[in-house]
Amino acid sequence: MPTNRGVVYLRQGQVEVQSIAFPELIDPAGRRAEHGVILKVLSTNICGSDQHMVRGRTTAPAGLVLGHEITGEVLEVGRDVQMLTPGDIVSVPFNVACGRCRSCKEQHTGVCLSVNPSRAGGAYGYVDMGGWIGGQAEYVMVPYADFNLLKFPDRAQAIEKIRDLTCLSDILPTGYHGVVTAGVGPGSTVYVAGAGPVGLAAAASARLLGAAVVIVGDVNPARLEHARKVGFQTVDLSRDATLAEQIAQILGTPEVDCAVDAVGFEARGHGHAGSQAEAPATVLNSLMEVTRAAGKIGIPGLYVTEDPGAVDKAAQHGALSIRLGLGWAKSHSFFTGQTPVMKYNRALMQAILWDRIQIADVVGVQVITLDQAPMGYAEFDAGAPKKFVIDPHGVLIKH
Amino acid sequence: MPTNRGVVYLRQGQVEVQSIAFPELIDPAGRRAEHGVILKVLSTNICGSDQHMVRGRTTAPAGLVLGHEITGEVLEVGRDVQMLTPGDIVSVPFNVACGRCRSCKEQHTGVCLSVNPSRAGGAYGYVDMGGWIGGQAEYVMVPYADFNLLKFPDRAQAIEKIRDLTCLSDILPTGYHGVVTAGVGPGSTVYVAGAGPVGLAAAASARLLGAAVVIVGDVNPARLEHARKVGFQTVDLSRDATLAEQIAQILGTPEVDCAVDAVGFEARGHGHAGSQAEAPATVLNSLMEVTRAAGKIGIPGLYVTEDPGAVDKAAQHGALSIRLGLGWAKSHSFFTGQTPVMKYNRALMQAILWDRIQIADVVGVQVITLDQAPMGYAEFDAGAPKKFVIDPHGVLIKH
Amino acid sequence: MPTNRGVVYLRQGQVEVQSIAFPELIDPAGRRAEHGVILKVLSTNICGSDQHMVRGRTTAPAGLVLGHEITGEVLEVGRDVQMLTPGDIVSVPFNVACGRCRSCKEQHTGVCLSVNPSRAGGAYGYVDMGGWIGGQAEYVMVPYADFNLLKFPDRAQAIEKIRDLTCLSDILPTGYHGVVTAGVGPGSTVYVAGAGPVGLAAAASARLLGAAVVIVGDVNPARLEHARKVGFQTVDLSRDATLAEQIAQILGTPEVDCAVDAVGFEARGHGHAGSQAEAPATVLNSLMEVTRAAGKIGIPGLYVTEDPGAVDKAAQHGALSIRLGLGWAKSHSFFTGQTPVMKYNRALMQAILWDRIQIADVVGVQVITLDQAPMGYAEFDAGAPKKFVIDPHGVLIKH
Amino acid sequence: MPTNRGVVYLRQGQVEVQSIAFPELIDPAGRRAEHGVILKVLSTNICGSDQHMVRGRTTAPAGLVLGHEITGEVLEVGRDVQMLTPGDIVSVPFNVACGRCRSCKEQHTGVCLSVNPSRAGGAYGYVDMGGWIGGQAEYVMVPYADFNLLKFPDRAQAIEKIRDLTCLSDILPTGYHGVVTAGVGPGSTVYVAGAGPVGLAAAASARLLGAAVVIVGDVNPARLEHARKVGFQTVDLSRDATLAEQIAQILGTPEVDCAVDAVGFEARGHGHAGSQAEAPATVLNSLMEVTRAAGKIGIPGLYVTEDPGAVDKAAQHGALSIRLGLGWAKSHSFFTGQTPVMKYNRALMQAILWDRIQIADVVGVQVITLDQAPMGYAEFDAGAPKKFVIDPHGVLIKH
Repeated sequence: MPTNRGVVYLRQGQVEVQSIAFPELIDPAGRRAEHGVILKVLSTNICGSDQHMVRGRTTAPAGLVLGHEITGEVLEVGRDVQMLTPGDIVSVPFNVACGRCRSCKEQHTGVCLSVNPSRAGGAYGYVDMGGWIGGQAEYVMVPYADFNLLKFPDRAQAIEKIRDLTCLSDILPTGYHGVVTAGVGPGSTVYVAGAGPVGLAAAASARLLGAAVVIVGDVNPARLEHARKVGFQTVDLSRDATLAEQIAQILGTPEVDCAVDAVGFEARGHGHAGSQAEAPATVLNSLMEVTRAAGKIGIPGLYVTEDPGAVDKAAQHGALSIRLGLGWAKSHSFFTGQTPVMKYNRALMQAILWDRIQIADVVGVQVITLDQAPMGYAEFDAGAPKKFVIDPHGVLIKH
Repeated sequence: MPTNRGVVYLRQGQVEVQSIAFPELIDPAGRRAEHGVILKVLSTNICGSDQHMVRGRTTAPAGLVLGHEITGEVLEVGRDVQMLTPGDIVSVPFNVACGRCRSCKEQHTGVCLSVNPSRAGGAYGYVDMGGWIGGQAEYVMVPYADFNLLKFPDRAQAIEKIRDLTCLSDILPTGYHGVVTAGVGPGSTVYVAGAGPVGLAAAASARLLGAAVVIVGDVNPARLEHARKVGFQTVDLSRDATLAEQIAQILGTPEVDCAVDAVGFEARGHGHAGSQAEAPATVLNSLMEVTRAAGKIGIPGLYVTEDPGAVDKAAQHGALSIRLGLGWAKSHSFFTGQTPVMKYNRALMQAILWDRIQIADVVGVQVITLDQAPMGYAEFDAGAPKKFVIDPHGVLIKH
Repeated sequence: MPTNRGVVYLRQGQVEVQSIAFPELIDPAGRRAEHGVILKVLSTNICGSDQHMVRGRTTAPAGLVLGHEITGEVLEVGRDVQMLTPGDIVSVPFNVACGRCRSCKEQHTGVCLSVNPSRAGGAYGYVDMGGWIGGQAEYVMVPYADFNLLKFPDRAQAIEKIRDLTCLSDILPTGYHGVVTAGVGPGSTVYVAGAGPVGLAAAASARLLGAAVVIVGDVNPARLEHARKVGFQTVDLSRDATLAEQIAQILGTPEVDCAVDAVGFEARGHGHAGSQAEAPATVLNSLMEVTRAAGKIGIPGLYVTEDPGAVDKAAQHGALSIRLGLGWAKSHSFFTGQTPVMKYNRALMQAILWDRIQIADVVGVQVITLDQAPMGYAEFDAGAPKKFVIDPHGVLIKH
Repeated sequence: MPTNRGVVYLRQGQVEVQSIAFPELIDPAGRRAEHGVILKVLSTNICGSDQHMVRGRTTAPAGLVLGHEITGEVLEVGRDVQMLTPGDIVSVPFNVACGRCRSCKEQHTGVCLSVNPSRAGGAYGYVDMGGWIGGQAEYVMVPYADFNLLKFPDRAQAIEKIRDLTCLSDILPTGYHGVVTAGVGPGSTVYVAGAGPVGLAAAASARLLGAAVVIVGDVNPARLEHARKVGFQTVDLSRDATLAEQIAQILGTPEVDCAVDAVGFEARGHGHAGSQAEAPATVLNSLMEVTRAAGKIGIPGLYVTEDPGAVDKAAQHGALSIRLGLGWAKSHSFFTGQTPVMKYNRALMQAILWDRIQIADVVGVQVITLDQAPMGYAEFDAGAPKKFVIDPHGVLIKH
């Protein structure tokens, strides 16, 4: 029997690399999954939403194998798999999707109706997302593989560009979904709240889409410096100048065409004093202030239904004090939810393969070994301007 | 000098018909408006949003001439008007729009950038909407007339169908905007919160668009009875059965494809006890519960930036406790703002002229004289299942 | 071994009901198809495009089992089928689609890339469409069943409404695709070329979508009379008055908002003399004349790459003399191709189940036995205003 | 009385700079045009469609003042102009549009219904386009100026970048319209037929939109070399290798995602022999061959209703032998017509002002004096890889 090792959540603030079971073609309900494949994991990234679990901001149980950003090599295919063969290099969308329900047929793979008995939408290694085993591991099972997997056209080219291609499983499509729903196109002025990896991926996506100016805001000086280094304008939300004032200094007007919330429910307040404390509605309320009338606001940042660690009782149940009246007066629209990765990953793969986007550099990819994963979680939690990519088999280190 | 009479706001709960100035081709800034026309008002409707002002829920000043739902006959045209001639029968979109700014060129006439110095968007007879004189009067001035006015193709036919056509200035396009932004199409299951005129217009629009089932919810028994009489399913929100339970009784599933908030910021709670008191976030939060994953929520119901009469301090500044986490988990999108009437009124006129929609019957049009306007305001405020249409010159009475 | 009987193409003008093999879970390439199901066929319609083959206008080989409009009951499911169980009543989209290729993931199931080695797109019982056995038979195999099949929610209700539901496999979605691509919506004026079943389904779809007026044109007096009987305006193209003149008599203007070509490549000319002969570009050229500037033209009518029976050499290879200059001057757009049925069938099923459309009456459904199929082909070819529905097991006769 | 000089069409192959009348605020029907402005022309480009006239391929009358690509400074404003003041630097969309008709309100300014009595759509200095005087002159009148003109935010910046900004009046939006209607987005593979200025502008637009690869095809070696120099892949259509074969050499597959026809009705055939002669349907037929199933084909290249110089009788009336059967088999859509410049010019201006596109270099802008205009026409007609920009007042020469 082959062995396997993976990153396991133990308790608030603690993850550990442990021996775990080698994957089988069996789904969380115990049924044979002949539609699935076993992957040798080539790269698997640590995500900001993993941090929500590790910080104890969810009800994730101890023992959960983490990891939903997976790129791998096909090792074994089930009987019902027709499009894939062992040796193929593939990107795994973080959403588990069946390809057969109404949501999947309508391209809403982020809210598949059949892979999670408790709600719409499934994911690997995530609390309440259907019990699919995570992929921060040496090996992982991917169900409905013909539907879910994106095969790279050329094996050698894929390995060559794997630092960029590893961003296709979540971070790049998620940032892209944010800007697409915000209506970004050629000539747009764009504000992205949050200079973490999702924010930077949103900014890079806006640039790919032809945006005129992309402004990224944060309170973390290292992240802001990194954002400037990779070519974006920035605003420092720990300063007392308002967001609108800082935008006006760049654009000559206090409003942008399009705005993206790449922060989510663990937002801090703005200004010198405000930025010391959590203030979950701050980002959205400030976006309504700085988005022009008839503008759209993309919200890829995660908001949750239950947050045991929230600052107040309402927020513990996902209710925030939103200035809806302001948005209404400006005819805003708002777009939320898990990104349906499959809608975007093929096009973004092409953009990477033809050198139209340097996403690894923009998000600050740093490759680590599987054993370094706990260190990666800690550094990322401390706000390092990096995207940690675990390399369980030592494949990326060489590139 | 010709005379004029109009409905004037006096103080909380009180309006009066007074002599007012005969309109001139002059804009609120005092500039000549050769692009404008003077209309003889043929019909002018009382709107739910007029009620917000009259109930003292806004900062409307005493002396304001009310009325933004206007249908009229062209009496006099400015020198720069090319498409209209005296005698034309026209519908006036409630939005005042210039046709020359970025918003107007992009079909966002609800947030015109040049007709209101204090914010995006103008309207007739409305607080904070640019100072344009209202049309619940015998005569009114309409600026940028070539751009704003929708001319009916045949004068006799227009008079014949004026009870329906009068709904084109606001109520029908507003209901329609709600269902269009909610994604309603053939086969949709639709829930509309609110059985007042906007809700009924949304329901009628959903039916016109081919929706399979349209369910309307309210706490007002007379309005619910009227809704059933004109062919819609209903749910009674004063009952203790939840909204989801009542929907499931109709559809066999607790969720709909599309939802519309036709209530806005003066919402009451649900259930026997809840419906006694105002609870401004109730509608939106309940819509997230009953809208399917990846569904859209149209919000034509008005939310305001300042509400001196609100139940709590946050709501006084337009901030409501929204269960954003729930919407996010279901990948909802939200669409707010004043309806850009011009985007829809021509098509809806055609639907009326070819008998595809009976909007007057659906919303319960009741024609009254100008002098009966104060009574109309009072009855409507008391929840009558009617849409009051003022007939200042006795033209509709005959039809 | 169970038996089976089906409609087989013999030679130009001749079909015959023969004993055929009972279906197996095997695809045309000879591979096991555990993703497939065996259906007991409840209803299966004769299509205008079947006629193209039977008239000898294609390269269809003798022995082909015809039939791509299938509604059935699940009899047996392959091991990889998860969503269906024996006894389910289902509609089969005429497109065979894998649900796993780029086209299918992007909702273009009409041009699936994996079910037909010779070109994009597959269908049952059709020349050059992948070799899938047709369903004008007692039993048929449907591959990728979880993806392809639309399950009706209630068995008894499905049987009750099966005359309407049988139209979901092709004719209704095809008509609907025509009007959707033509941009039909509330208030549209619509011209549909062709009063055969696809034309009538397009007209019914336009009405469902809220169109103000729907005008259907043909040269066949029986079909025109039927079209009027089910509520549409008509123009008679065998008259010498031009199409534009006849439209102007109805609308007061010679142009419509939206136009649909429901005729295809076997079009006849217009006018008394012209209508005696085939003139394959007539329909499209006339649609450009009568469609307003910036209008869209939906082309669900079939055009082919090879037509051995065409009137001239160019047409034999699918090249027609199109007045592109006219379309260009009016900024027209043109939408062609097989309808991706899955994009529409669920919504249209809902419209049928909630009585929003009476498609069986509109297209003139006439139920016949399997043995009557050759008579159905002959009558339909002669221009009867009917849609023949074969009832191989005597299920519909009772309803 | 101030003087004026402009480029006048004399006869086939001949234009001349003549004294012409100084513009007045009067429209072609002789009515006062208080909505208009007089511009001092800062730059005005020679367009490929001007060449159609000068080559005698239209019914343009002798004496026509040419020029529809105009950038200028406001000199005098009519009474009804509110948004502009003398000294503003503005771009003039080549479409004359009223801003008041149905087409204009729906953003279809390319087919304005009121500025041209003979058909939908107007333009400056162009046959059959409404009689508006052309702008290859020192001064020109622009009607409906508040609606039509795009004002540059900063005068000095505008002058600085005028070589690029001059492309906003036609060439850049036209190329952009081609690729937008063809569905180009991030990661797309794109083929553009024609390496003249429109083709290059389409290619530059595709790159701005994030396309993965942009391939330009032509038979003119100088243009192909220029296209390669500014960063595009090329195919040489005078070679005997087919277009599909040449595309496959670049992409590894003979099909692209999106295709654009930037040639129009004066197309030549392909291959060594073919490219010697005109073959007006060649481009469209070849695009259907190389565009993938479900792809879109943008057709900004001009096709005409009457072409006295065409190769055959059908083409003289705008009818071409189109392989519609091929397009239908691949579910293609086709988008034709004059570009509605206003839909795009503001966004593209922003892209220029923020250095996201170097359109002047891509299209090969070469500035000439007004007196050099006849030479510009001749060189451009001979196939020079240049975009000639006339500088009537010597403003650009300095930059």
